[in-house]
Amino acid sequence: MSEALRIGIAGLGTVGAGVVRLVQTHAELLQQRCGRAVAITAVSARDRARDRGVDIAGFRWYDDPVALARSDDYDVLLELIGGDEGPAKTAVETALAAGRHVVTANKALIAKHGTALARLAEDQGASLNFEAAVAGGIPIVKALREGLTANGFASVYGILNGTCNYILTQMRETGRDFADVLAEAQELGYAEADPSFDVDGVDAAHKLAILTSVAFGSPVDFESIHVEGIRQVSAEDIAYADELGYRIKLLAIASRTDHGIEQRVHPCMVAQSTPIARVDDVYNAVVVEGDFVGRTVFEGRGAGAGPTASAVVADVVDIARGIALPTFSIPAANLKPAQIAPMDQHVGSYYIRLLVLDQPGVMADVTAILRDEDISIESMLQRGRAPGEPVPVVLITHETREAALDRALTRIAALAPVQQPPVMIRIEDL
Amino acid sequence: MSEALRIGIAGLGTVGAGVVRLVQTHAELLQQRCGRAVAITAVSARDRARDRGVDIAGFRWYDDPVALARSDDYDVLLELIGGDEGPAKTAVETALAAGRHVVTANKALIAKHGTALARLAEDQGASLNFEAAVAGGIPIVKALREGLTANGFASVYGILNGTCNYILTQMRETGRDFADVLAEAQELGYAEADPSFDVDGVDAAHKLAILTSVAFGSPVDFESIHVEGIRQVSAEDIAYADELGYRIKLLAIASRTDHGIEQRVHPCMVAQSTPIARVDDVYNAVVVEGDFVGRTVFEGRGAGAGPTASAVVADVVDIARGIALPTFSIPAANLKPAQIAPMDQHVGSYYIRLLVLDQPGVMADVTAILRDEDISIESMLQRGRAPGEPVPVVLITHETREAALDRALTRIAALAPVQQPPVMIRIEDL
Repeated sequence: MSEALRIGIAGLGTVGAGVVRLVQTHAELLQQRCGRAVAITAVSARDRARDRGVDIAGFRWYDDPVALARSDDYDVLLELIGGDEGPAKTAVETALAAGRHVVTANKALIAKHGTALARLAEDQGASLNFEAAVAGGIPIVKALREGLTANGFASVYGILNGTCNYILTQMRETGRDFADVLAEAQELGYAEADPSFDVDGVDAAHKLAILTSVAFGSPVDFESIHVEGIRQVSAEDIAYADELGYRIKLLAIASRTDHGIEQRVHPCMVAQSTPIARVDDVYNAVVVEGDFVGRTVFEGRGAGAGPTASAVVADVVDIARGIALPTFSIPAANLKPAQIAPMDQHVGSYYIRLLVLDQPGVMADVTAILRDEDISIESMLQRGRAPGEPVPVVLITHETREAALDRALTRIAALAPVQQPPVMIRIEDL
Repeated sequence: MSEALRIGIAGLGTVGAGVVRLVQTHAELLQQRCGRAVAITAVSARDRARDRGVDIAGFRWYDDPVALARSDDYDVLLELIGGDEGPAKTAVETALAAGRHVVTANKALIAKHGTALARLAEDQGASLNFEAAVAGGIPIVKALREGLTANGFASVYGILNGTCNYILTQMRETGRDFADVLAEAQELGYAEADPSFDVDGVDAAHKLAILTSVAFGSPVDFESIHVEGIRQVSAEDIAYADELGYRIKLLAIASRTDHGIEQRVHPCMVAQSTPIARVDDVYNAVVVEGDFVGRTVFEGRGAGAGPTASAVVADVVDIARGIALPTFSIPAANLKPAQIAPMDQHVGSYYIRLLVLDQPGVMADVTAILRDEDISIESMLQRGRAPGEPVPVVLITHETREAALDRALTRIAALAPVQQPPVMIRIEDL
């Protein structure tokens, strides 16, 4: 039997405490599955006295995570602090520079500095694992890097933010507005006091940047992601989506197109019959399209102490078993910058909602503008008549290029009877 | 750069040809991801001249797979012949005994001889990988063995046979009977000329035996699985299921109960709202319930050249990367026989359909028998009246033990006005 693998944990919040609980609960199971013991030896957090519901008395204590990283008390550092700068980054760099393995749940850190950290890890012969950074308990990084690795990937996409998915699910089920549901989600602890990280799509974009890199062999490129959040999604649009056979989901999508790799996060309408449409509440889902395997779908809990601890400890088990792979599936030195497809070259169908004065000739003007841009209309919905009053008009276009749609919407917005900026939601034909 | 990993392929049917195509298509990708080339060097099949749509001229040819296994022409043997005895078994044993790695898609072989083969492999320091044997392109063995390995598992279950799922989907969508849809599936190539292996649940049971072993750390135990197929599922029951909010699926279920491990394959009614209910046609799905991760769901194609080749080559990549794990997650010598829960100790709800003469007192007799066995009725459906004629009656029970239900159904079947043996389908509360 080999010696125990020594774990140092930096950060004892919900996830850190979850990892302690898991390792203590499953000590024997882990020993069987790893062929050696996994032992927590040292921890670091701000407040030693805080009750975390787990016994940390037997671990060496560090006030400073960087001091822990610098010590000889561990073989694998678990970085569970969070944040893309500061002590989290310094602790990870310190550990890797010393040739120690690192497991992190920190998506912001990997999305911003993943390529540089991977090079550091690989230069030092250390592992840098981050399964928990994307889609919580779903082993999607392992699936892309190993289980589906025999495929060329056409796309990887999914529901990567449980807070947004919870809010959109509640809005649909109750008919309430965004602000109302957000407030409730905050009370329930499903959304942060400052929710912008989640509801503006940043968190999903961090995760997408990581998936793109693993799937397409390019350096992590968070900056080039087109990001829109869900603040603008209205109860009205959700009701129309329902009626038209769609669900509105915040999707994070990476796909190979004729213009390069598209990386985008925004609200989408997806057909109710597609598996991802039924993934509700705080659940995450990831869909992978591979050239040999076809479509595979992975669903599970995207956050929370248990699922995140499951992913963190699985990464530790890989290290205990001697599994050492390049961080992003191929060596960081071989990652090739992808050509980024500009968003205005995106091709797709669109949902458009207008508020127009109900008067003769309006729709003739709107449809003439669309015709000028070669955009053909798949369907149109105009509910009720109210001569002279504002009425909603909903249009679904056939496939068109986003640049053409943008030009058309600019002209439509300028028409006198159009009462508010047109609402546009992309339709994903999954 | 290390030397190329040399692949010998035994069996060039649909899957074998798919593997050749994948390795040829993705030679560069595989080299990048493995850090070394993967090269097919030798093949074996019955008919050298047959057109398989791939170029095999550059590979050394063997008429006999065992001669290939005995040769020095390869590092990894891919066993893609099939069958749980004969040349497939001998070739695998020969390769492992020589310390060579084996990758197989052969579920029957692993279900029958997996434990012995795993011991042989581990004694010789060789890998025995079989991702393709279960659920085709879905990397579920890897998920259980690695991605979710930090969990204790409460259950693993799923739709593991695409042929049955296709037939049940068609029956529901068209209202046609089993025999009719089976004949069509045979014409379309979705079912074999002799379909018994699929429709009688044997194939799903082979796969379940493997999953059980990986999840619960017990030797592969195909013989103790309770197996029922889908021949008895009628269009009438499918229609009632629809009306009652269920779908009928052939599920393979392994779960931990108070009486030990249940392993069973049989038609089930599952709520339409549960993800697995919407997995249709030839798709497979596997659900894993882990104590920390909660529920994760994996969906994808369960068969076909592309998905199976994807899984086979992923196993090869693991070997090329130096990933070597015990076959069933823990060393074969440590697998502990599980206590098997007898089927009559199963606890669940049941759908019962009776054909009874519409006359006074029948339902009083039926419900008295159920009461005698402490079985309570959740709902009852009796459509139409036809005094003196046979009419269907559908009952849904609350949770009860199967032994009690069996006794009750025996007594009910003996009642004079009951016109045919009662139909029973288990309801799974997933």
